[in-house]
Amino acid sequence: MNTRTLVKDLAALPDGPVTVAGWVETVRDQKKVQFIILRDESGAVQLVNPAVRELDPEGVSVGAAEALALTEQISALGHGTFISVSGDLKHDERVKLGGLEVKIGSLDVVSEALETPIAADSSLDKRQDWRFLDLRHPRQNLIFRIQTTFLHALRTYWVERGWIEIQTPKLMASASESRAELFELGYFEGTAYLSQSPQFFKQMAQPAGFGRVFEVGPAFRADPSFTSRHATEFTSIDAEMSWVDSHEDVMTMHEEVLVAAFTAVKDRHGAEIQELFGVEITVPSTPFPRIPLAEAKEIVASRGYVVPRTDADMDPEGERQISQYVREELGHEFVFLTDYASSIRPFYHMRHADDAGLTNSYDLIFNGVEISTGAQREHRVDVLIEQAKEKGLEPEELDFYLDFFRYGVPPHGGFGMGLARVLMLMLHEHSIRETTYLFRGPTRLLP
Amino acid sequence: MNTRTLVKDLAALPDGPVTVAGWVETVRDQKKVQFIILRDESGAVQLVNPAVRELDPEGVSVGAAEALALTEQISALGHGTFISVSGDLKHDERVKLGGLEVKIGSLDVVSEALETPIAADSSLDKRQDWRFLDLRHPRQNLIFRIQTTFLHALRTYWVERGWIEIQTPKLMASASESRAELFELGYFEGTAYLSQSPQFFKQMAQPAGFGRVFEVGPAFRADPSFTSRHATEFTSIDAEMSWVDSHEDVMTMHEEVLVAAFTAVKDRHGAEIQELFGVEITVPSTPFPRIPLAEAKEIVASRGYVVPRTDADMDPEGERQISQYVREELGHEFVFLTDYASSIRPFYHMRHADDAGLTNSYDLIFNGVEISTGAQREHRVDVLIEQAKEKGLEPEELDFYLDFFRYGVPPHGGFGMGLARVLMLMLHEHSIRETTYLFRGPTRLLP
Repeated sequence: MNTRTLVKDLAALPDGPVTVAGWVETVRDQKKVQFIILRDESGAVQLVNPAVRELDPEGVSVGAAEALALTEQISALGHGTFISVSGDLKHDERVKLGGLEVKIGSLDVVSEALETPIAADSSLDKRQDWRFLDLRHPRQNLIFRIQTTFLHALRTYWVERGWIEIQTPKLMASASESRAELFELGYFEGTAYLSQSPQFFKQMAQPAGFGRVFEVGPAFRADPSFTSRHATEFTSIDAEMSWVDSHEDVMTMHEEVLVAAFTAVKDRHGAEIQELFGVEITVPSTPFPRIPLAEAKEIVASRGYVVPRTDADMDPEGERQISQYVREELGHEFVFLTDYASSIRPFYHMRHADDAGLTNSYDLIFNGVEISTGAQREHRVDVLIEQAKEKGLEPEELDFYLDFFRYGVPPHGGFGMGLARVLMLMLHEHSIRETTYLFRGPTRLLP
Repeated sequence: MNTRTLVKDLAALPDGPVTVAGWVETVRDQKKVQFIILRDESGAVQLVNPAVRELDPEGVSVGAAEALALTEQISALGHGTFISVSGDLKHDERVKLGGLEVKIGSLDVVSEALETPIAADSSLDKRQDWRFLDLRHPRQNLIFRIQTTFLHALRTYWVERGWIEIQTPKLMASASESRAELFELGYFEGTAYLSQSPQFFKQMAQPAGFGRVFEVGPAFRADPSFTSRHATEFTSIDAEMSWVDSHEDVMTMHEEVLVAAFTAVKDRHGAEIQELFGVEITVPSTPFPRIPLAEAKEIVASRGYVVPRTDADMDPEGERQISQYVREELGHEFVFLTDYASSIRPFYHMRHADDAGLTNSYDLIFNGVEISTGAQREHRVDVLIEQAKEKGLEPEELDFYLDFFRYGVPPHGGFGMGLARVLMLMLHEHSIRETTYLFRGPTRLLP
């Protein structure tokens, strides 16, 4: 194994020999001294070399030819070239970048680079074309280190409490929720569909007696829209738990797991996020505010915005407005909007015992945008069938799903949450394209 | 929230009131006493009720009507019914099942069950039809708790060492490795393909400067075979790391992460695995044996088995044989077969510097079956293009991938490993259908 030291680990080492490896961010090729800023996945370090521009015509000193060669090698280095450098680490508080530098002993050019086609002011679309270069930027790198920490904290919360991780299939024989926005593919002699969500299969874990399950995996929507919040493929974080009394139990779990994840992100990356994004990460206090949707619409209306929809739903501007209200009045970045009308919820959401017009469901709004939908599920098969019919679905087509409820099933509920949206809103970014490793949209399948 | 106690937590509680909830595994309805075995995701417990078969005709005592009703309710309970029971926990070492029982105070039938269509001796195919009932079996439940522990241990190993978790897209504009076995779908006005592996996209993290990355996610193969080891959709565990000197560095990491995961599984589930599968989990010692493939074929031949292939590859029987040899001679369940011929490896495997006929690659065999392929990747774009051409690929079609190597890239390598195969072999199961939540094959898309 290459015995390179990560840049972030240099600070803790004593002065002496080290090997570092990464790519050339900049070269300052001055007459008497050359500087390279070398970056790796953990940070950047200054490398220094006293330039030797010509051989002494009087008499060649030992090593002079090598020194000249090294100087010329550094002069020729292009941005993005991957190099491995052995040299001497020296702590020196005058060095702005981390208070240390490495005096170059030897330098290996491992992989040369064509000139980068993107710049700091390139359009988002162009940066997407060259995503593998765009990701070299420290902000982009940080996003995915945050993602790593965020996901691991969620999973750790669940694993430590005895939840089971499932991997549900993305190939299905029929639609999971709606025929609209469904990708269809030839499957041997027949047809298959790409899963729009693990909804049915995570519910299957309930009659299976798994109790509490989670999954992090892709979901697919043949959604032709081009907003900053939609993708044709996205990472969905899903949880489903048995023996809930209502959606309130789901919300309690939901806020706890988010607190665990935000705490981990703040602890591990808070200072860097402040530095690179100018954002102070706030670990949300619990309970998160809860506002019934009908009341939220009244609040928004009283602030002068009437949701321009003919159905009972909120719209994105309404979500921004209620979020702003909650921030101003309650000092919170999150709000659960609860008790959505049955008319705008899927057939499998449980309805209020005393008002079939409302569901035991919620959306979670974070900094103005919906990141998640949760609900208690209807587990009584006769009621479920009625609700499916009412939505115009054919119970026959849903038979494999309805079977899950015919052989005994506990009351249950859960949520689905979009990973890229959470990261976008956490970092005050403007598009999920920035917080998705490789975005997929109606006109984007590459790289 | 329902304040049920998980069955596994009863042992630590003092005698007194408890609520448990789960499904009815059996009812023994004796004349004077009734027993229910109730199971939840954590275990099974005996519930007991003194039967009251008729009202005393002389004078009805207080509560006698309720006692009669409870008795009749229990008599009517069907297998699989989900119930919630409040009662009195009593530790009693005479009770075979866990040394405790719960005397039933009240019983709620939460969800009735049709009679189960599967039995212990049902065929694997029929059990797959009713997977959500099949999964209620303690062995099946344990498999997915092991999966949870196994995955969390792998990820924890990586996360603690600074690896980045990526979620690569499953929708691609072109094939990742081969046009064969590729699912194709209509994508708006064009065509997309389902990813056969995250190979190209995890490699993309290398020029992106991510250093070391991992992913756990689905992969898709339009593979028409019906073996016990193949599926059209499977969970792939992928790792890719920068700055390797050869595949040896990948193998070292690979064995370390497996040791971490097997240690976690043994610590957490070893006793239960022994009980339910009759398998003693062995944490493998490092280094795992390494045998060049050519040598492995000679060993197998010397034991009387000549691999019946015209190419340089091993076959499944050869893998079983070399695995048996390693177990007998070296006492190890794992073996790395190394240095596969270039002719049978993908174009992106790096070849030996001194013998272009061999690659810096390996397969990992576990208990007789291949679970993983790893390699150092060719990162020199000119060599890579030559190797692609030699394999009959069109460099133009691979252009988006080749670009990853034109703007600077560190030497790197990694592996892909099939989750269901590891679990199958760990537990001495005979098919990945047993270790996949919902198996997908050429004729299996349901449930």
